[in-house]
Amino acid sequence: MINKLITKIQKTNAPIVVGLDPMMKFVPEHIQKAAFAEYGETLEGAAEAIWQYNKGIVDAIYDLVPAVKPQVAMYEQFGIPGMIAFKKTVDYCKEKDLVVIGDVKRGDIGSTSEAYAVGHLGKVKVGSNSFYGFDEDFATVNPYLGSDGIKPFTKVCQEEGKGIFVLVKTSNPSSGEFQDRLIDGRPLYEWMGEKVAQWGAECMPGSGSYSYVGAVVGATYPEQGKILRKLMPNTFILVPGYGAQGGKGADLVHFFNEDGLGAIINSSRGIIAAYQQEKYAQFGGEGYADASRAAVLDMQEDIAQALNAR
Amino acid sequence: MINKLITKIQKTNAPIVVGLDPMMKFVPEHIQKAAFAEYGETLEGAAEAIWQYNKGIVDAIYDLVPAVKPQVAMYEQFGIPGMIAFKKTVDYCKEKDLVVIGDVKRGDIGSTSEAYAVGHLGKVKVGSNSFYGFDEDFATVNPYLGSDGIKPFTKVCQEEGKGIFVLVKTSNPSSGEFQDRLIDGRPLYEWMGEKVAQWGAECMPGSGSYSYVGAVVGATYPEQGKILRKLMPNTFILVPGYGAQGGKGADLVHFFNEDGLGAIINSSRGIIAAYQQEKYAQFGGEGYADASRAAVLDMQEDIAQALNAR
Repeated sequence: MINKLITKIQKTNAPIVVGLDPMMKFVPEHIQKAAFAEYGETLEGAAEAIWQYNKGIVDAIYDLVPAVKPQVAMYEQFGIPGMIAFKKTVDYCKEKDLVVIGDVKRGDIGSTSEAYAVGHLGKVKVGSNSFYGFDEDFATVNPYLGSDGIKPFTKVCQEEGKGIFVLVKTSNPSSGEFQDRLIDGRPLYEWMGEKVAQWGAECMPGSGSYSYVGAVVGATYPEQGKILRKLMPNTFILVPGYGAQGGKGADLVHFFNEDGLGAIINSSRGIIAAYQQEKYAQFGGEGYADASRAAVLDMQEDIAQALNAR
Repeated sequence: MINKLITKIQKTNAPIVVGLDPMMKFVPEHIQKAAFAEYGETLEGAAEAIWQYNKGIVDAIYDLVPAVKPQVAMYEQFGIPGMIAFKKTVDYCKEKDLVVIGDVKRGDIGSTSEAYAVGHLGKVKVGSNSFYGFDEDFATVNPYLGSDGIKPFTKVCQEEGKGIFVLVKTSNPSSGEFQDRLIDGRPLYEWMGEKVAQWGAECMPGSGSYSYVGAVVGATYPEQGKILRKLMPNTFILVPGYGAQGGKGADLVHFFNEDGLGAIINSSRGIIAAYQQEKYAQFGGEGYADASRAAVLDMQEDIAQALNAR
């Protein structure tokens, strides 16, 4: 799957992943109204609204980008109906041949991580049958529990030709509270980066030079990204924090390798709620999907300029 | 909710939480057969099997213990039908007046942690209504992202009278890879423990001396537990790893305060799959729930003896 992701990045010339993190406040009024008219102001109504909202965005951008990253929390908050909307979104994006990165940040002790890996990337056995649960292409994983929590994921990835992105240095303001603490003179995120590179070395696909064990490093920490890029030369970096969280195109160049690959930049509300920005206000709520398309094209241009200028 | 948990521990004289972590290999044949007869060997069939299995155990033990801890991964692996079984289990346990600790180990950047907090502990707004998503009483939380990932949970806990348990030192063999690394001469888990105590100090319920921000510390690390107990005097400790993972009654005493409180010990397969152990084999698959009851009583005795002997 990492090779498919790379091929699609090259074909679209867009190292961009669109974060499908629907909040109700992003969903245009006409979509909310239609969903509530059918299901009432219920969890089912909310789930229908976010699903229709997602579908509009996906239809508008699927030819421009290689991948999407639904953040499961935004669905999970609506309980079971929300999880059904998550699954519908994953399936629809795969139909559109988008690579789907499930932003689930799971991670637990061995047998439990195995269940998460099976549920999100692999197949679960039921009697003599087996079934995919959520069936994303990649999942994000939290490494606080160490190798025990990672290995079950890499095992499933190997079997299924899928991949993971392990949290190394997250984009949020307080990420340094633990991740920046010095251990033998080096911050925890560097140790984590080295570990990810080690896990990844055992997880190279048959061809290509990037491992299917990737890393998450926030765009909001470009200096740290520069160091981590060098520490993990064969690791693909998923970079959240562009746009709404403050990361800019120029901040991103160090996340890429000399080959112009090695990073994929996420933008969520900057794209999916573009119509709420002044810059794209002319599209209005009815034109929210076109606004998203315009925002993707602008982001592509911003990144290309930054990469060309280096 | 922390005060309710404490009152129930005192009433049952059992600082025990039963981990409802159903794996298909634990589910007795007669339950699997009945579920598959109705739904086929499908995800729905598996979900029905684990739900019926859980129900049998809950009916057999609900008067003996204060709390249960369903591990969401074991449900999530069965996709949407699994999540429905999770929700049914949560609701049923609450009907039986058990405190429900959702072992979800969520944690993300601020706005995303807020969605998880809302989904698992609080209410989500839909138009002019609001709804509970999964509605557990407590949730476990992964702190790798720092305060940003914790604060949205404590906010919801305060509003809803609920609580969290933050991962400090996990029970698995590789937990030391990062958690034991020394920072300024002290292991990361101690820094984490101090932070949990700080977060907790702002989260004391109106009465009682324990915070509703608890910690997770594995029974498999009794020496570390001893230190953490002292570092976090007002923190309730959720202790996994008893039984199947190797923790013994004698290992547990240091997790408790002088008042005999401050810790709740989890056992999962040691109780829910007791009938598969030689010790409880006479119960057979048909008597699996009675075997679970016997295992709870034995565990209660083991802990009481260890506490009396200190």
